[in-house]
Amino acid sequence: MTTPSLIAADWGTTNFRLFLYDEAGQVIARHAANIGLKNLGVLSFEQALLSVLKGDFAGHEHLPFLLSGMVGSRQGWVEAPYATCPASLQTLADGLVKAPSELDVAIVPGLFAESPGTGLLNVMRGEETQIFGILQSDPSDGFFVLPGTHSKWALVRGGKVESFSTHMTGEMFQVLKAHSILGLLMENSTDNEEVFLKGVERGMYNRAFLSVIFSVRTEALFNHIAPEHLATYLSGILIGAEIVAELERHGKSPVRLVGDGALVDLYEKALAFAGFTHVTRFDGNAASESGLWAIHKLRSSK
Amino acid sequence: MTTPSLIAADWGTTNFRLFLYDEAGQVIARHAANIGLKNLGVLSFEQALLSVLKGDFAGHEHLPFLLSGMVGSRQGWVEAPYATCPASLQTLADGLVKAPSELDVAIVPGLFAESPGTGLLNVMRGEETQIFGILQSDPSDGFFVLPGTHSKWALVRGGKVESFSTHMTGEMFQVLKAHSILGLLMENSTDNEEVFLKGVERGMYNRAFLSVIFSVRTEALFNHIAPEHLATYLSGILIGAEIVAELERHGKSPVRLVGDGALVDLYEKALAFAGFTHVTRFDGNAASESGLWAIHKLRSSK
Repeated sequence: MTTPSLIAADWGTTNFRLFLYDEAGQVIARHAANIGLKNLGVLSFEQALLSVLKGDFAGHEHLPFLLSGMVGSRQGWVEAPYATCPASLQTLADGLVKAPSELDVAIVPGLFAESPGTGLLNVMRGEETQIFGILQSDPSDGFFVLPGTHSKWALVRGGKVESFSTHMTGEMFQVLKAHSILGLLMENSTDNEEVFLKGVERGMYNRAFLSVIFSVRTEALFNHIAPEHLATYLSGILIGAEIVAELERHGKSPVRLVGDGALVDLYEKALAFAGFTHVTRFDGNAASESGLWAIHKLRSSK
Repeated sequence: MTTPSLIAADWGTTNFRLFLYDEAGQVIARHAANIGLKNLGVLSFEQALLSVLKGDFAGHEHLPFLLSGMVGSRQGWVEAPYATCPASLQTLADGLVKAPSELDVAIVPGLFAESPGTGLLNVMRGEETQIFGILQSDPSDGFFVLPGTHSKWALVRGGKVESFSTHMTGEMFQVLKAHSILGLLMENSTDNEEVFLKGVERGMYNRAFLSVIFSVRTEALFNHIAPEHLATYLSGILIGAEIVAELERHGKSPVRLVGDGALVDLYEKALAFAGFTHVTRFDGNAASESGLWAIHKLRSSK
């Protein structure tokens, strides 16, 4: 029987995933809960965290807790100021912030970077932990792609996140689908690879983004794309627009693609279409688990 | 005393503007009403039209009516199929569609164009009437820019609308402000020219649209732009992204800028910033008035 030694969580705006580790860093229990920042309601962060310590997690309130993600933002439990890139795993361990709680809770800082060449400022929270998690088993230099509400493309060199950029791809899809004239035309979405790749192609080869998306409407008006495929077409345009921007900056570098589910399947298809021949896929939860443990170890060894 | 001879209207999704013409084509009365397509409620189109025939318009139900705008769309009174570019004023007169009504109502068709080089399909309703209105007094070739919910850039040659493109600039601003994380940060918007032009510059010189807009969030996070200027900054990015796309296609051609109010002021500033040295501004309502009369005359002379 192994001894529990750490409770850690990836705690975001929507998602919450809890991990229990033994003394060797093996995850011996997992739990997902609906206590993302936007779902807390009247619960305090401490109340929410205690409420999920059930089953394998029961009775372990005395363990150290380590949290990554938006829980460390200004709207989170306590603000863990962004660490500036280039940033190493040690930078994250050094930047841990204690939460105001009877529990022993530390929160991982997010990362801040100024995009090379553009002066644009970028921030991430949670993805940095996933990147360093993957670097534990595969420490090579290269690009990480983390699709999502705010997709990240991060460049790692010499064990440090050197720079990264953000694309509002996922959020743009949601707001256009729910709140724009384009969404009005969409019906019961079903996937269609051909239509998706047509979107990717147009998003990549026509850089007039505000103009290309209007084609969702006209392709529907003239019955070129069926109502049930319009959402797929729009997602193709958005992912294509994201990929071409990074392609222009960095070329077809090998990329490590991080995440799970249908969204990441789409990125895999789009990256292949765009000519990325070296794409390796990593599980997002496993990456968080590994990263949180690595930060914990570094803290413990101080 | 002049004799009323025509009632015409620009009837859009939001706006409705009614014009009464004498026999010489002078507008002798105007009326604006809140009966855009989205505000009709339980009223039929005929009921809505009759409801605004008050004051100078009272008792003129026997006159011919001519309507342009979204009233001719599939969601309108009756669909007036899009005429295909290149299209002349005669094309519009030939494409008039009678509304199913006791009144003598004709509806102007919209225009359809395939964008040169991209294969993207485009449509407009209402703007074509404004363009031909302006061509009545200034028939020269060139570009027309019609800012709005769906901005149009139209190329006119030899008295015909040869092609045009659409940018969802206005709608994008609205949905991002009302429904995205970017809008959450905005407070009591006030204009600021410097911040607006900073947005224009970034929208123009960084073609990664989905990435550039995220800077609304980070500029706020790091207190580089005040909350009351964030909306201005976002509008600058969007207008800059629209302008640079057309600039790449067409260069700094002279443009005729059509419309009224604060939005068109912004376009004027942004076009000047982008290096457009020949920008002439035209009033949108006057353009509709003139275009509707020109179409009416052509119909009458058949």
